[in-house]
Amino acid sequence: MSSKKKTSALEEKDGVPFQEATNKNRISEIRSKRKKELTADDLVAGIIKQDKVALSRAITIVESTNPRHTEKAAAIIKKCLPYANKSVRVGITGVPGVGKSTFIEALGKYLTSTGKKVAVLAVDPSSSVTRGSILGDKTRMEELVKDRNAFIRPSASGDSLGGVARKTRESIILCEAGGYDTIIIETVGVGQSETAVHSMVDFFLLLKLAGAGDELQGIKRGIMEMADAIIINKADGENTKAAKRAKTEFTRALQLYPPKENSWVPKVTVASAIENTGIRESWELVMTYMAQSKKSNYFEHHRIEQNKYWLLQTIDEQLRSGFYNHKAVKKQLQEQLEAVANNEITPFEAARYLLDLIKEQS
Amino acid sequence: MSSKKKTSALEEKDGVPFQEATNKNRISEIRSKRKKELTADDLVAGIIKQDKVALSRAITIVESTNPRHTEKAAAIIKKCLPYANKSVRVGITGVPGVGKSTFIEALGKYLTSTGKKVAVLAVDPSSSVTRGSILGDKTRMEELVKDRNAFIRPSASGDSLGGVARKTRESIILCEAGGYDTIIIETVGVGQSETAVHSMVDFFLLLKLAGAGDELQGIKRGIMEMADAIIINKADGENTKAAKRAKTEFTRALQLYPPKENSWVPKVTVASAIENTGIRESWELVMTYMAQSKKSNYFEHHRIEQNKYWLLQTIDEQLRSGFYNHKAVKKQLQEQLEAVANNEITPFEAARYLLDLIKEQS
Repeated sequence: MSSKKKTSALEEKDGVPFQEATNKNRISEIRSKRKKELTADDLVAGIIKQDKVALSRAITIVESTNPRHTEKAAAIIKKCLPYANKSVRVGITGVPGVGKSTFIEALGKYLTSTGKKVAVLAVDPSSSVTRGSILGDKTRMEELVKDRNAFIRPSASGDSLGGVARKTRESIILCEAGGYDTIIIETVGVGQSETAVHSMVDFFLLLKLAGAGDELQGIKRGIMEMADAIIINKADGENTKAAKRAKTEFTRALQLYPPKENSWVPKVTVASAIENTGIRESWELVMTYMAQSKKSNYFEHHRIEQNKYWLLQTIDEQLRSGFYNHKAVKKQLQEQLEAVANNEITPFEAARYLLDLIKEQS
Repeated sequence: MSSKKKTSALEEKDGVPFQEATNKNRISEIRSKRKKELTADDLVAGIIKQDKVALSRAITIVESTNPRHTEKAAAIIKKCLPYANKSVRVGITGVPGVGKSTFIEALGKYLTSTGKKVAVLAVDPSSSVTRGSILGDKTRMEELVKDRNAFIRPSASGDSLGGVARKTRESIILCEAGGYDTIIIETVGVGQSETAVHSMVDFFLLLKLAGAGDELQGIKRGIMEMADAIIINKADGENTKAAKRAKTEFTRALQLYPPKENSWVPKVTVASAIENTGIRESWELVMTYMAQSKKSNYFEHHRIEQNKYWLLQTIDEQLRSGFYNHKAVKKQLQEQLEAVANNEITPFEAARYLLDLIKEQS
């Protein structure tokens, strides 16, 4: 993130025909030093005053993989916690090409037009490797990015989904402390990231396209069951009819699912982000859900359960990474996996063998 | 298990009006000593000769929580492995009341009538606590239990799903070595046990009932997506029409799901275990699947993946149980969970705190 910042700061000079003959490295040194001087208290004060730059810098510290930042990040989050937790958190997923960015821009603009403050974050663990485009190319939300009541942040980089998810979840707290009452978390409809996002939001929205072949677009099994609502997007022009038919079909299919814990029956609606139709209706579904969920106290209960989930999840992840990064395990894992594949040993016996390796050496 | 055996052996004496004046304790001592004398080699030889008693005793050793048995169990399994892996493994789930036992009995009888050897095992982690009735009450399969080509084994007891699942999975190996070419694993449609069973079978069958209200019977979300086939059971008498309607509805619904890894589209059929209709048709679905799956080499691939899954799963479980049974963690976990619930600390911070406890003390 910080390297991106520098690039964009330097780009501001593009308009200057002859750049100053200053040592560029020296500039960024001074700049980064100046940034570092802001204490956790300074940053939190800025966040509370709804200063986007402070929020942005604080998130950069939370996202930093530099161990020096760990303590500062923890301090910032701790100080933000009392101000947090007052937003509506909505997850949005859908395969590439379904029109997520356009939909989020239309939804974001609608929300700010009704006086909301909207933060858009993303969970996309692949982006760090493939330089994927989720929100990375901010220009895809050209109008929303200029909106003073909107804050858009590309996906945190990181080498594990757990790491990226943690960063996003902590960023939510910062955004909430910064006065954002609506948090949208975008993710791409392939892989494990949906489960992570589903576990950090109040409402989970799945965008789909009408028409044959959509089933083959690679929405992972299980994601439909997570959805609190399905929006058939691109319901415009020639697609309008097919979208309405899809709405009927999905509504019927969702009724066959077992009921959700909070007895919410997932809803289906159609929208066209480009023609700006169905956006308000989509949001009304979220509001209906929120009203019901708060009335039944499910909202509060669910958030506490999510917190506990993340506690246990983090412990799991750390235990696993400690194990699989252990020298002896690294050396022998492949061999054991092969023995298991060849039915020379049961999985349980192989596990026992590997677990014993750690005990011996610690 | 062994205590049950003793009970049933003693019960044989019920018909004797005056029981012999022998010391009962001494009898059971001798008896248990005699059993103990069978070596792993003896038991394996018995299993291979398709001796049900040897199989049963070997499973008892595999299921034993007595550490003395661990090594013997491992030896038995190791010796059975070369004979294993040649069966069709089918998982069957459905909520209580759907008629699982009756269906399995009808299916089992059909299979033995075609020359198959059928083993029925169960995964029901709740049974150890609640004395639940999955296969515990063998009389529910009165006819199948008498069939010489059928072997029925109640759920292993154990305090964790992981433990129960491991025991069942190892019992599968023993049954296969014992010449059983069809293994049916029953589980109850509530809780995590479906995922465990799904990960040890080739084909996963969901039993449902037709008619309104079934959605409310508590099939866990996600289970429908695991199913390779849905059987609408109790399609008899007044239910026949509703069952056929349900078949159409579920077929349509399943088409909206994303395709499975092996491109199998889950099928729906109706059956009446009581009237013995639809049983052959249900099995033909399994056979169609097996033919396709073997032709595409998915079968082999899938079993290897399952083995790897169990290896990683066992490691996870052991790491977790090591952590949560750690004295310091046990003492502080509740406090941290509460702090997290009250938003005094983030889940990640709490996790870090708990993980540090182990590092300090080890």
